[in-house]
Amino acid sequence: MAWWGWGSPEAERELPEPALGFLREQLGITGEGRPAVTLEAVQVPVSGLSDDAAAKLGAARTDHAARVEHAAGKGYPDLIRLRSGDGSSAPDAVLEPGSEEEVRGALQACAEADLAVVPFGGGTSVVGGVEPLRGEHAGVVALDLGRLDRLLELDERSLTAVFEPGLRGPEAEALLNARGLTLGHFPQSYEHATIGGYVATRSAGQSSTGYGRIDELVLGLRLVATGRELDLPPRPASAAGPELREVLVGSEGTLGVITRAALSVRPKPRRTRYEGFFFRSWGEGCEALRALEQAEASPDVARLSDERETELSFALAGEGGTTARIGRSYLRARRYAGGCLAIAGWEGEEDDVTRRRARSALLLRGHGALALGSAPGSAWSKGRYHGPYLRDALLDHGVMVETLETATQWSNLQALYRAVRDALHASLGARGTPPLVMCHVSHLYPSGASLYFTFLARQEEGSELEQWKAAKAAASQAIVSHGGTITHHHAVGRDHREYMAAEVGEGGVELLRAMKDRLDHAGIMKPVKLLPDPPGA
Amino acid sequence: MAWWGWGSPEAERELPEPALGFLREQLGITGEGRPAVTLEAVQVPVSGLSDDAAAKLGAARTDHAARVEHAAGKGYPDLIRLRSGDGSSAPDAVLEPGSEEEVRGALQACAEADLAVVPFGGGTSVVGGVEPLRGEHAGVVALDLGRLDRLLELDERSLTAVFEPGLRGPEAEALLNARGLTLGHFPQSYEHATIGGYVATRSAGQSSTGYGRIDELVLGLRLVATGRELDLPPRPASAAGPELREVLVGSEGTLGVITRAALSVRPKPRRTRYEGFFFRSWGEGCEALRALEQAEASPDVARLSDERETELSFALAGEGGTTARIGRSYLRARRYAGGCLAIAGWEGEEDDVTRRRARSALLLRGHGALALGSAPGSAWSKGRYHGPYLRDALLDHGVMVETLETATQWSNLQALYRAVRDALHASLGARGTPPLVMCHVSHLYPSGASLYFTFLARQEEGSELEQWKAAKAAASQAIVSHGGTITHHHAVGRDHREYMAAEVGEGGVELLRAMKDRLDHAGIMKPVKLLPDPPGA
Repeated sequence: MAWWGWGSPEAERELPEPALGFLREQLGITGEGRPAVTLEAVQVPVSGLSDDAAAKLGAARTDHAARVEHAAGKGYPDLIRLRSGDGSSAPDAVLEPGSEEEVRGALQACAEADLAVVPFGGGTSVVGGVEPLRGEHAGVVALDLGRLDRLLELDERSLTAVFEPGLRGPEAEALLNARGLTLGHFPQSYEHATIGGYVATRSAGQSSTGYGRIDELVLGLRLVATGRELDLPPRPASAAGPELREVLVGSEGTLGVITRAALSVRPKPRRTRYEGFFFRSWGEGCEALRALEQAEASPDVARLSDERETELSFALAGEGGTTARIGRSYLRARRYAGGCLAIAGWEGEEDDVTRRRARSALLLRGHGALALGSAPGSAWSKGRYHGPYLRDALLDHGVMVETLETATQWSNLQALYRAVRDALHASLGARGTPPLVMCHVSHLYPSGASLYFTFLARQEEGSELEQWKAAKAAASQAIVSHGGTITHHHAVGRDHREYMAAEVGEGGVELLRAMKDRLDHAGIMKPVKLLPDPPGA
Repeated sequence: MAWWGWGSPEAERELPEPALGFLREQLGITGEGRPAVTLEAVQVPVSGLSDDAAAKLGAARTDHAARVEHAAGKGYPDLIRLRSGDGSSAPDAVLEPGSEEEVRGALQACAEADLAVVPFGGGTSVVGGVEPLRGEHAGVVALDLGRLDRLLELDERSLTAVFEPGLRGPEAEALLNARGLTLGHFPQSYEHATIGGYVATRSAGQSSTGYGRIDELVLGLRLVATGRELDLPPRPASAAGPELREVLVGSEGTLGVITRAALSVRPKPRRTRYEGFFFRSWGEGCEALRALEQAEASPDVARLSDERETELSFALAGEGGTTARIGRSYLRARRYAGGCLAIAGWEGEEDDVTRRRARSALLLRGHGALALGSAPGSAWSKGRYHGPYLRDALLDHGVMVETLETATQWSNLQALYRAVRDALHASLGARGTPPLVMCHVSHLYPSGASLYFTFLARQEEGSELEQWKAAKAAASQAIVSHGGTITHHHAVGRDHREYMAAEVGEGGVELLRAMKDRLDHAGIMKPVKLLPDPPGA
């Protein structure tokens, strides 16, 4: 993966000229390029490992490339810093254990040398989750799990697969597909994210309305830690006390290293069908999705863009596109112009897709949807992992681009939506960089749904991080004060830790600290992440 | 509820003569009655409350009836002791708080007076969960939550209801039904169990294959405790760290008192349809259920009895029953004699039931099932809460009757089934009381299923508890050494706590202890429950 952005350095990431024109007009960007520096030009501090520590660690990498590649995740502030040549967050060393025993050995060595440990999977965190902060320790090591990449067991009768943590999404799918199976977990980071990362960050994928979030797929886990270790074998269900799997899911590497995960798999769908539907308004679309979900008639993929995101996706596709042109005139003729695009997708056996699609479509139409057929669905499917590449292109043109997400009960959805949108407009407007703010619903539950915001603004040159902090703080405050969760699937990392008390209360934070004390006895796992600093620290 | 058994003291609980004849023949019981003693004859220790403690507690009940009624749950050993007049486990006092604030006050008073606290909901535990053990404390108080019985909030748009813990199943349903809604949670204990009990014991109901276990219905919880308290508002989903709701679900009162629970509700089904299917063998039936579940075609209720349970249910229904007579000859004619009865039930809108039933039935027939129509389904539905009354009748006739349950992956289901059955036969056979052992599957998951065993044997008069302990230990050992969970939905309580290290490892037990230390700071909540004694204790 490109150290300065997403995906292969060679991947196409140019914005079409009409899109650029739209952004120039809307955001006031100049259009001058702001490319990243070269790898060699990234400034990293001297590796702070003592000779003694280096000896304890054994075969650690301390070369420039390895340190830069493990210096950050893929959040906006991460990329801003790296692209400008600021590698101050580079770890002192990178360890690449090849077995569970080597993970254990690495943790022991780091505990003895007082080195903080940051487990590193795909490095795709957008919330500062993998930035190697050292906290109060003498140094910090990135623990790259990429060599732990095996499918260890496959129980086809029980539809259960046991994976090592470093296996990436596409490789896991390839191994399962070869046996006619799928995990069905496709976050936008899918091309690079790992099994361990899914579990550690409580991930949700684009098909999670149908397949379930990662927490619903986890059957068993093993955790290697500096204190007590855990080995929870795969079980379909149990009433034997609190569910400890749910303590490890979302633990973000702060308790230890997840070294194996037993996950539910299912038959690979023989057919997938993605379609577009259009609503006259966001409110109407949200009500339709609520009706769908509460009638247990949801598609596996269900997304609804608000008016602004719908408009922007038309603009980014280019005004000249035939599909866009046909679509627009059709929508005008049907009096749906200015409305909201929804994508619905069904996956499964031939008959199931037909049957389930008919049921969803009937309900959607009954709630005001106009069926647009498969063209918008195919377009979505083709571009489903494209967002992060687009971000690189926007950064190249001096555009601030960030995403954030939350979830709440249906009865609170519109109030939360307005609060976050207003907060972003107010905070960035006050800085003279009024944003484009757009939003979609992408995960449905009987009791509520997620909201996923994307916002664009002209970068404040020289104050990019301050600008980002202001917008992020305003949006986060709006979320927690309007009943949303601080994160639906991006996780906590560094960026959301100050909101954990709002999320789970002081009591919840204390409980999480108690768990960490017991499992991460040495206190070296991922300092300054997930939990706020203790009082008085 | 009758202090000596289940349900109203007046409820009919006589065994039909043919059933009694069958049991005499199979188990060698004499048929002499063994009735319970009178309430007055139950021997309870003098209440050990000091004057100081009594003053701290305020309005506590210490009368004989209240103490006996809170002396035990409804497990076999509980009933054996109480029926014989042994009330030695009676609490020193019973508190009946009427508000969350009074719960908090009660915990503080108990902490100051060094009294252990045992929260008491419906009192239906069959694993020793509510037996008021005092541990190392000066005394023990039963905290009866029956006055906390309100539906606090109903968010119909989000299908979310907020309950107090002491509300019983039927009352909760009545409140929801009045608004066209249902919780859909129907454990066998439904007539007496409470919302708080469901959550605290990680309960599953007879329709949980369709509606989900209680952990899948919990959206938010509040815990009052002697240390840190927790207030987790209802949220559809979150990636903000470990899931703390899942720490409270199944905590069995050892962390504190759950004072409110926000649960998912859904539209009350307009139609329910329960039907019988017959399989030539248990193995064939299990494979059919696996196919059903893995094709996402499961009914909401799915139960499969093994050959022995099928035979016994025929016998208990009485040979003379017309249905049984017709059924038997039909099965013989179709060459299904000696096979296994399954019950499948669908609930929902008229169309949904028709559609889903057709799909399930097609798959079941494709896997060897013979459709028996709705008569067996109606019979099951009519008797769905009848098991515990039947137990009272069996106890009256000197029959040992106990149930235990587990769950495992599909690939391990038959090995676990044989191991538990063999362990019960061996342990009770060795004591000269060979048992009848029967089993059913009643909860389906993509990766596995539950096994629910019932066993009957002639009571060893004077050694009833030793006999039970031997059988229970043999079965529990068989479960944990063959990959089963020690409990699928009965919870841990007193009876399973020694198996928690086998269940979650020593590390898991330590983690649970750390949680308890932080939340139950005074260390008074439910001693000698859920967790094994610490090493060296």
